[in-house]
Amino acid sequence: MDILNNHNALYTDLYELTMAQAYFYSGQKDKTATFDYFFRANPYQGGYAIFAGLNTLIDTLQNFKFTQNDIDYLRKNGFKEEFLTYLKNFSLSITVTGVREGEVVFPIEPVLKVEGNIIECQLVETIFLNYLNFETLIATKASRIKKSAGNKLFSDFGLRRAQGIGGIQASRAAYIGGADATSNVLSGYLFNIKTNGTQAHSWIQSFDDELTAFRKYVEVFPQNSILLVDTYNTLNSGVPNAIKVGRELKEKGYTLKGVRLDSGDLAYLSKKTRKMLDDAGFKETIILASNQLDEYLIRSLNEQNAPIDGYGIGTELITGKKTAALDGVYKLSEFNNEPRLKLSDTFQKISIPGNKKIYRYFDKEGLFYADGIALNDENETKIIHHPYERNVKCNLEGYTKENIYHTFIENGKIKEREKDVNQIKNYAIKRMKQLPDEHKRFEKPHIYKVGISEKLNNIRNDMVNQIKRKRG
Amino acid sequence: MDILNNHNALYTDLYELTMAQAYFYSGQKDKTATFDYFFRANPYQGGYAIFAGLNTLIDTLQNFKFTQNDIDYLRKNGFKEEFLTYLKNFSLSITVTGVREGEVVFPIEPVLKVEGNIIECQLVETIFLNYLNFETLIATKASRIKKSAGNKLFSDFGLRRAQGIGGIQASRAAYIGGADATSNVLSGYLFNIKTNGTQAHSWIQSFDDELTAFRKYVEVFPQNSILLVDTYNTLNSGVPNAIKVGRELKEKGYTLKGVRLDSGDLAYLSKKTRKMLDDAGFKETIILASNQLDEYLIRSLNEQNAPIDGYGIGTELITGKKTAALDGVYKLSEFNNEPRLKLSDTFQKISIPGNKKIYRYFDKEGLFYADGIALNDENETKIIHHPYERNVKCNLEGYTKENIYHTFIENGKIKEREKDVNQIKNYAIKRMKQLPDEHKRFEKPHIYKVGISEKLNNIRNDMVNQIKRKRG
Repeated sequence: MDILNNHNALYTDLYELTMAQAYFYSGQKDKTATFDYFFRANPYQGGYAIFAGLNTLIDTLQNFKFTQNDIDYLRKNGFKEEFLTYLKNFSLSITVTGVREGEVVFPIEPVLKVEGNIIECQLVETIFLNYLNFETLIATKASRIKKSAGNKLFSDFGLRRAQGIGGIQASRAAYIGGADATSNVLSGYLFNIKTNGTQAHSWIQSFDDELTAFRKYVEVFPQNSILLVDTYNTLNSGVPNAIKVGRELKEKGYTLKGVRLDSGDLAYLSKKTRKMLDDAGFKETIILASNQLDEYLIRSLNEQNAPIDGYGIGTELITGKKTAALDGVYKLSEFNNEPRLKLSDTFQKISIPGNKKIYRYFDKEGLFYADGIALNDENETKIIHHPYERNVKCNLEGYTKENIYHTFIENGKIKEREKDVNQIKNYAIKRMKQLPDEHKRFEKPHIYKVGISEKLNNIRNDMVNQIKRKRG
Repeated sequence: MDILNNHNALYTDLYELTMAQAYFYSGQKDKTATFDYFFRANPYQGGYAIFAGLNTLIDTLQNFKFTQNDIDYLRKNGFKEEFLTYLKNFSLSITVTGVREGEVVFPIEPVLKVEGNIIECQLVETIFLNYLNFETLIATKASRIKKSAGNKLFSDFGLRRAQGIGGIQASRAAYIGGADATSNVLSGYLFNIKTNGTQAHSWIQSFDDELTAFRKYVEVFPQNSILLVDTYNTLNSGVPNAIKVGRELKEKGYTLKGVRLDSGDLAYLSKKTRKMLDDAGFKETIILASNQLDEYLIRSLNEQNAPIDGYGIGTELITGKKTAALDGVYKLSEFNNEPRLKLSDTFQKISIPGNKKIYRYFDKEGLFYADGIALNDENETKIIHHPYERNVKCNLEGYTKENIYHTFIENGKIKEREKDVNQIKNYAIKRMKQLPDEHKRFEKPHIYKVGISEKLNNIRNDMVNQIKRKRG
């Protein structure tokens, strides 16, 4: 599904179009370029990120074109006729190479690489950043929540607090990263994700009393009701009424599926509720909890042995709190077949030039050990250099390597893509198992080794020196 | 423009549909309901919010229907045939009343009210919350940034860091709340918002040197170039090269429009840059600044007398940092023509029952003084009670009142709407001028008076007592 329908080419920053016009008139339009998509810091001060958004992006790029309305709009905004004719006939011929969606990725490595003529590479910059930054942010958050939730049910309940229609992408990314299901029906429909849900306070309030509300609900869903027990008072009213209805269900041969706690102290209330349910013979009835939960609160509930069977997570998941945005960027690394560099007063912001790929190295247990960024024509990189600290290197002799780069789009045509979100999710699960625990912890995680090849290191040093010499 | 196209009815939480089915089979489906949309806390710990999202929502609701594909999907997910037939023939007949988009609003007041049969009111809950929470969050952030930016240009540069395609709505909301322009071309096109932009580092890097890059750019845009000066070194390379190119432009009769600073200490660099430009005779050349700015950093730059003429604001604006989500809710206030209440152990979470409206009271200078929430049939409310503290009231005798409630949709038909985003923006500007300064400050703003009428206060107290008595 192309989320943007007929509007994909305008979903960009104006300066991409003004630069495109400038490339067009300055005789640069057919020069080739390579851009790298990468981020500088893991979200949530964590130790890794789960790459997501690639296949929604590929979907949208498939229909990338300027319609007559788009052209007319740009004309009104001062773009020149010759350039508008160029846009009218424009179609993408880019090549997109990089890691698979669901891959575990790390700062500074070129997660994706876009090659093509400079204009097309520039025109897609914003949409790459918009889709990939956001979906990666949310998939990573979901992965952290899943770590805390363990085998307990983890549902995405975030749509009402999502940042507008980005909620469509957010629920997909949450599922890839770790959510077991979503409340978002449209994402369920579009991406074949399992949906679930319980009931709202309004259902309870619409009846004269809570007991009647529960009774009426289980009449319609006798096998599948999760009753919301906090509308009036959880322990004095909600749970006792749920138990009454549960007994009535039992007489008809059904089992009350569950209750949901949505306010108050969830550790305290879940223990009291569990005891009340157990004492009444409802050992199979599950307890779901929701209300501003995140990976830290769930961990705390676990530590308190709160007998909660599943979590509904909203705001914190769906907006990627507290990070809000992945700082991913899209930087020119090669132009007209020559490596390019962006200097900066901050050494960490100096870009890595050249047309590159990534090798991942595994230890004897099959766990990730280090990633080596190499030039595209290098078959391996036995030594990797620290990207910023001089003379810090690491020897990868004896470690198994895997080229984690794939070509997804070749000269504008889709070459490899994964339509099935469940496959992407499974890939993420598999890769997370290969990531050592010390990179997964929330507090000051161990920094994963990402280095650059000897050749790349030399090229970069030469370029920095050359530019500095030129400047005098 | 309907952002969701043919998918609006599925853009909901699953439980709205399961509850709808339960209402359907429990004989409640034609009972009337009233829901209030309100929030409990101002975003950013501020003193107010700018209401936004109403007209994008109205657009989407216009096409609200279940397509055959939607029905088939729901059938596969276990919904029953009779109910599916009901959905197939479903069309909205809700009435939506409330404050205008761009209005200044406050916690606990029913910003919008939705009336209709219980099923339709429930089915639209999620989309109301999704659109209104987000657009209000961003419009409010923009308003705060505009307060700091004053008359200086404030551009939304956030699309690349926006939360997915919600960026379409974010740029619109940012414009309503205070941004003067956006880099987001699609939002510019859809909503008739002024777009702007400068150039990226990639443009500079694509040439062998910075001077050539600047020269080539001004050749194409001699009247309109804002040169990005930090690719190599701002003061040693970027600004001197911009001045060289500015001199060449001058010889041709043009003026260099501006330079942009995108890294480093913006206070220091802007002062040095201003001096270099002035000394070279470029007093009209403006300085734009960008790089992780927000309302606090802009205020700090002002305090340091940084000679910056305009700001490009990205992440902090477009994601509503640090709030991430407005906590807006949608609560049943009346069912079958009887007032309904949600109790809570927290008194602040007890809802305000009944079918209501809002009167705004103005002081003699025409500034906002207080808002009174009244029952729909009350023509005024001379006394307002504190919504939570008992026996705290306020006399509004002598203050001018305005009914700020309008009917936007009546029985499913659009009655009043504002298509022109510029009109909405102008309304917000007008209303912000009527909000006293003490509610606008960032630190511990004065709390605006919002109270409930005597009649409403009595009804609520009676209901609370009745429910508590019943529970024993």
